[in-house]
Amino acid sequence: MSFDVTSQSMRFEAPLPLRSGAQIRDYSLAYETYGQLNAERSNAVLVCHALNASHHVAGRYADQPKSEGWWDNMIGPGKSLDTNRFFVIGINNLGSCFGSTGPMHVNPDTGRIYGADFPVVTVEDWVDAQARLLDALGIDTLAAVMGGSLGGMQALSWTLQYPERVRHAAVIASAPNLNAENIAFNEVARRAIVTDPDFHGGHFYEHGVVPRRGLRIARMIGHITYLSDDVMNEKFGRQLRNGTAIHYSTQDVEFQIESYLRYQGDKFSEYFDANTYLLITRALDYFDPAGAYGGELRAALARATAKFLLVSFSTDWRFSPARSREIVKALLDNRRSVSYAEIDAPHGHDAFLLDDARYLGVVRAWFEGIAAELGGAA
Amino acid sequence: MSFDVTSQSMRFEAPLPLRSGAQIRDYSLAYETYGQLNAERSNAVLVCHALNASHHVAGRYADQPKSEGWWDNMIGPGKSLDTNRFFVIGINNLGSCFGSTGPMHVNPDTGRIYGADFPVVTVEDWVDAQARLLDALGIDTLAAVMGGSLGGMQALSWTLQYPERVRHAAVIASAPNLNAENIAFNEVARRAIVTDPDFHGGHFYEHGVVPRRGLRIARMIGHITYLSDDVMNEKFGRQLRNGTAIHYSTQDVEFQIESYLRYQGDKFSEYFDANTYLLITRALDYFDPAGAYGGELRAALARATAKFLLVSFSTDWRFSPARSREIVKALLDNRRSVSYAEIDAPHGHDAFLLDDARYLGVVRAWFEGIAAELGGAA
Repeated sequence: MSFDVTSQSMRFEAPLPLRSGAQIRDYSLAYETYGQLNAERSNAVLVCHALNASHHVAGRYADQPKSEGWWDNMIGPGKSLDTNRFFVIGINNLGSCFGSTGPMHVNPDTGRIYGADFPVVTVEDWVDAQARLLDALGIDTLAAVMGGSLGGMQALSWTLQYPERVRHAAVIASAPNLNAENIAFNEVARRAIVTDPDFHGGHFYEHGVVPRRGLRIARMIGHITYLSDDVMNEKFGRQLRNGTAIHYSTQDVEFQIESYLRYQGDKFSEYFDANTYLLITRALDYFDPAGAYGGELRAALARATAKFLLVSFSTDWRFSPARSREIVKALLDNRRSVSYAEIDAPHGHDAFLLDDARYLGVVRAWFEGIAAELGGAA
Repeated sequence: MSFDVTSQSMRFEAPLPLRSGAQIRDYSLAYETYGQLNAERSNAVLVCHALNASHHVAGRYADQPKSEGWWDNMIGPGKSLDTNRFFVIGINNLGSCFGSTGPMHVNPDTGRIYGADFPVVTVEDWVDAQARLLDALGIDTLAAVMGGSLGGMQALSWTLQYPERVRHAAVIASAPNLNAENIAFNEVARRAIVTDPDFHGGHFYEHGVVPRRGLRIARMIGHITYLSDDVMNEKFGRQLRNGTAIHYSTQDVEFQIESYLRYQGDKFSEYFDANTYLLITRALDYFDPAGAYGGELRAALARATAKFLLVSFSTDWRFSPARSREIVKALLDNRRSVSYAEIDAPHGHDAFLLDDARYLGVVRAWFEGIAAELGGAA
């Protein structure tokens, strides 16, 4: 059973300086909250989202029965992250197309839609913006910050940018940075979008078109990298769409996997903004806390004082367990408190969003520990 | 040192029936031969090509100093496949854009360029066409057939379609069929091409354009799958193109890997035919000798009587060693003679084209065995 939630929005007039040297002013952040902030204001948990997600993390909108949030299996009353005990905040990042100010909104400096002129935002910028939202909500310190994939990068970055404001951090199915292959897949997806004639240099809004072709290709590539080889073979294998008949066509669908990917691409291209796709994949590319430390992750993480939970999934080849172990090692080298679970799951990177008793159990136990630390307050 | 070679062509007027039910008539096959056919006509070795290759397997054209064939490191006088002992035939497949009849040629039935109307060709069709070329060259039996990747599939198919005409088969970096992930990558590449507005349903020749955008994306995707994660990290890692300065741009090149992929995509789009790309990836998708045997590879390979060499490469995630081992097992279950080498190489699928002393040594030893069987004849 899910629970009813409401989307909220907060406007920020003061300019937010960005890592690129640019700034953004007069922007809004969409967010949701679940549960009650306790009197000590000590039980807040911030949940950060990945590429194709939003502040709508859990629960559903009263008028939309099938609108469960993207981590609804994880978060809610009595769930692993228990909203009876914690005050959970979902936030939509700057540049997104799901409510916060993004490329499809009007640039207050020009009166025109941002489009490709929306400033490049980084994981660090998002964390800064999230910190301002917490300020506005009167929350000084987070009991925990949690995220998967790109959301895990934000959780990690929180512990480095605002170590004194984060007591615990859950970094799930994530990595300390993208490797060359990760960047390569992002780049192909971006090229598909940017070279779509309907992209118009990122100012397609003015032309009344959407670079659907490019978005479809981008999503198809993404989907392949989210799934494991094994789960693809199990779900689709070499199954033909039409029973046993091959049609000998280079352009029509022959295999179920093609049909599935085309469907995912089509669906995505109808709601996702092309400029947002570029921005978010670039934020992924740029994230590299060790970069300023000559590649020494240990040195980069020395600032972190939070207690960590790291979770990885055995068949995740996008952000493999080895990448999580890099973070674990760097934290342990700094004598930080780290719990690490490597979950044997067949679903690849997608596993972090799926039901898995061991995975949900690990997160539950971790939050129970945090609740115990909070004592009667949680 | 390479050696001089000449491209040849043979025309076939009789219609070739294809697996699709269609047929093709009045077509030409481009081919090259190296070495001398012995008096017994028993030392011929056919080399089959993969996606982006041709009949120009070894040697170079006298007037083009840098025109070495794609497997020149493997084949030539004194090399692993020694043209002093063997008569080597390289052949360009139907539907290719490198000399044999393909989509950019005129359909004799209509007088128009084939374009998307070029019939869908399968691995089995290619083998049939290759057999006709051998007939015309007066070669009844091959000492060996050899190929890597898609070329390996042709070598395998030879042993099933014409078991009595093949004494040995080398199947390198190949697979008994594509898995769902392989098909998925092919499909994304095809969608990029087909949805490029310059594709014009495959009849772009008449419009004087080429679907370059789609071809670029297809090649970029392909390249990622040819390389291993390790070799990408070693060659490119997170290296920026311009030293240490990030430019905070979603559309410009930031990382070396992006620059590399764009270059590969650009180059490819200037010479490769879009319809050929569709045809060849479909031939890959369709190949599945076990398909007619309820997925039982053992049953499918029962017909093969050749002696086999299988080679795989440890970091090849496109056609992983596990896929080669499936073939090895099915052959052994049929009590066939099989040598198998799993080469520990960092280069991913590309390894089958690269210099590796152990790999080249394995192939050399195998061909020395064949030469010994031929006795004085080779």
